[in-house]
Amino acid sequence: MAAQFRALRDSIEHNMIAEIIAVGSEMLTPHRQDTNSLYLTAGLNRLGVSVAFKTIVGDNFEHLVSAAGIAIRRADIVVFSGGLGPTEDDLTREAAARALGIGAHRDDAVLEGLRQRFAARKIPMPANNQKQADVLDGAILLENKNGSAPGQWLDTVVAGPQGQPHRKIVILLPGPPGELKLMFDSECRPRLSAVLPARHIATRMLRMALIPESSVDARTAPIYQKFTDVETTILAGKGEIQLHFSAAKPTLAEARARVDELAELIEAEMGEDIFSNDGSTLEEVVQLMLGLRDMTLSVAESCTGGLLSERLTAVPNISRNFVGGAIVYSDALKMKFARVPAEVLDQYGAISAEVARALAEGIRAETGSSLGIGITGLAGPAVPTTGPDAGKPVGLVYIGLSDGEDTQVKQLQLPGDRGRIRLWASMHALEMLRRYLQ
Amino acid sequence: MAAQFRALRDSIEHNMIAEIIAVGSEMLTPHRQDTNSLYLTAGLNRLGVSVAFKTIVGDNFEHLVSAAGIAIRRADIVVFSGGLGPTEDDLTREAAARALGIGAHRDDAVLEGLRQRFAARKIPMPANNQKQADVLDGAILLENKNGSAPGQWLDTVVAGPQGQPHRKIVILLPGPPGELKLMFDSECRPRLSAVLPARHIATRMLRMALIPESSVDARTAPIYQKFTDVETTILAGKGEIQLHFSAAKPTLAEARARVDELAELIEAEMGEDIFSNDGSTLEEVVQLMLGLRDMTLSVAESCTGGLLSERLTAVPNISRNFVGGAIVYSDALKMKFARVPAEVLDQYGAISAEVARALAEGIRAETGSSLGIGITGLAGPAVPTTGPDAGKPVGLVYIGLSDGEDTQVKQLQLPGDRGRIRLWASMHALEMLRRYLQ
Repeated sequence: MAAQFRALRDSIEHNMIAEIIAVGSEMLTPHRQDTNSLYLTAGLNRLGVSVAFKTIVGDNFEHLVSAAGIAIRRADIVVFSGGLGPTEDDLTREAAARALGIGAHRDDAVLEGLRQRFAARKIPMPANNQKQADVLDGAILLENKNGSAPGQWLDTVVAGPQGQPHRKIVILLPGPPGELKLMFDSECRPRLSAVLPARHIATRMLRMALIPESSVDARTAPIYQKFTDVETTILAGKGEIQLHFSAAKPTLAEARARVDELAELIEAEMGEDIFSNDGSTLEEVVQLMLGLRDMTLSVAESCTGGLLSERLTAVPNISRNFVGGAIVYSDALKMKFARVPAEVLDQYGAISAEVARALAEGIRAETGSSLGIGITGLAGPAVPTTGPDAGKPVGLVYIGLSDGEDTQVKQLQLPGDRGRIRLWASMHALEMLRRYLQ
Repeated sequence: MAAQFRALRDSIEHNMIAEIIAVGSEMLTPHRQDTNSLYLTAGLNRLGVSVAFKTIVGDNFEHLVSAAGIAIRRADIVVFSGGLGPTEDDLTREAAARALGIGAHRDDAVLEGLRQRFAARKIPMPANNQKQADVLDGAILLENKNGSAPGQWLDTVVAGPQGQPHRKIVILLPGPPGELKLMFDSECRPRLSAVLPARHIATRMLRMALIPESSVDARTAPIYQKFTDVETTILAGKGEIQLHFSAAKPTLAEARARVDELAELIEAEMGEDIFSNDGSTLEEVVQLMLGLRDMTLSVAESCTGGLLSERLTAVPNISRNFVGGAIVYSDALKMKFARVPAEVLDQYGAISAEVARALAEGIRAETGSSLGIGITGLAGPAVPTTGPDAGKPVGLVYIGLSDGEDTQVKQLQLPGDRGRIRLWASMHALEMLRRYLQ
């Protein structure tokens, strides 16, 4: 008993890890995805529990027993979602019992509740539904206010590989999100709080654009690696790098102090490369800076075809600082809406530094805005075979930014397909604008 | 050898099952989700391979080795996505090698390729990136056309619990979707086809826009339910309904005949509501129809802020039929670029049928295109409190379509937030255009 008690205390005092098992063959098709785990993860994280594994398994008894057994061995808390319905495909109860090596019994009170539920709707209860009253030996039933299948909560001890006792909490929740969320909040969170040590989690995020992930990591790893009590995650995608920090401490003040301390050191290292330390998007930062400087912006987009404008106008209230602009897909519109001289198009081609400059200067003059941006480039896949742009490579993009006095032009050679080239071109334009405004 | 040969043949002749392991701590947070597995599942299904398990695991060596080992034991094909980057967190190569009990070596050619990639961008290669050249012993490298990390393909034999040989295919793919999708299609599908038994799966998809899912289901279920050998899935999202049909038969001709038979009956029922029966997007259908009728298009966008132009210009070669247009976010630009009379703005407000009509007619006249579209509306969340638009509700959108002789104007009251209103407004514009061209 003394050994068992110590083991229980240890497993509570150490960070507990959770595994979420989403049960249902539909989530193994190309068309449907588990989303319950996002909600469960947020709830578990708030209680100081990390999710270490997620498993998605179909309505197959053998696979489900195997997945349940693995989860019970490697995690402290195992949460199942789905497979508690009345059909032959609903196997979570049976599989959890098999994996735990325990039995189950039919609960008369639950059975009576199910009968009344059907009676109230004047439908005879199908025999299948009886199995929804099967309860794992030792489990507590969790009320389902939004459906027929009750959940189950089992706080138990299983033997480890050397026979040492491990405390495990096994939770069975129904799959429909409305049932699962309510049951997790009302039935599971209070029980988990009572079992878990009090911990408070603080998080921070720093965002950067257009920097290689490896160089961010090379510069920041020497700093964040010293913060062994702060979990650091680097996310990269769509031209952006995010650094996420998370710390769990006995008090919220302590947790906040640690993530703030780390964030400040990283900010000092990365400097102006960081565009946001409060979660704002690059578009939101640009909007804020335009507002602070009381400036307006217009754009003339060729290869991005409206993407830059669309991103800017996704931000509410940007109309104070963004007047609009033109999609100058044809040469005729480059001349008409952005005053690009015909001889510049003829001499240098539409995909040129000269045209990017003319677009930025022209759209600014035409709209009367403080700043103008012009983007021209070749997003592919087709390449011009005649005229002044013949032979220019896919991915060649020029961006001009004019404030009426000076115009800067940036030349890019972007890799990837049409969608990636257009996305990165819009990122570069936003980042040029941010650095100009800073 | 005879036993081994039989085991190999058996595992090929039986249905092979796959496991997908998505690697990355970000997918164990409430903020990010694995989506690559949906694409991979579709591709594997088309080859006759079912996905039996999906595992999501963080950037933790011990967890990753454990998950890899489990997958290699229980699945025939194991596909990893993610964890091939250059950072210390990128551990998939090392973990797969450990789980398989094999070594890895640094490939000079890959290393040289990485160096050249950095040299081309004039950035010194961080030392970290060298590990992207580490290759599992016996593996084939898979070219990454969209990024720096090559993938890996290992066709190997591992010993089962009783020492019997099992053929296993282990595939390492990069996490960024653009890299993963291209690599799976160009590098993995041909190799898998060569390994797998011939089963023929035919699929069809019918696409509709802006119709409630329930009414599509009510009209089509009586038809598709009779085709018990065809799997039918209805997907709804972003203003679109997709009906997916899939049949597996001994010959491709038989499989195709069944999905075609069902698709034709559904097409007869849904008629012109179906915009595509060959996978084309609504934008692509519009492009095709503009091309067939030899017409050009211009747009003047206010509340959608460039989204319609961006969607149209995502289609390659649309420049033949799309000349561009204007983002008329301010009233001044509505007048300047789309000839909207000041008195119309004053009298009816910018969010009005009259302005949508004037935008469509004006941008058409200004650009000389065959057709003009004008969009104006209130995407929110702020509402005008003064002027002629005061009191108009969020979600009120007007779309005009002009061909120079007639102009039709559609009034919409769209639910949801700013993003949803803008997206649905762009869908309605595209669908108006398609029905006009049809």
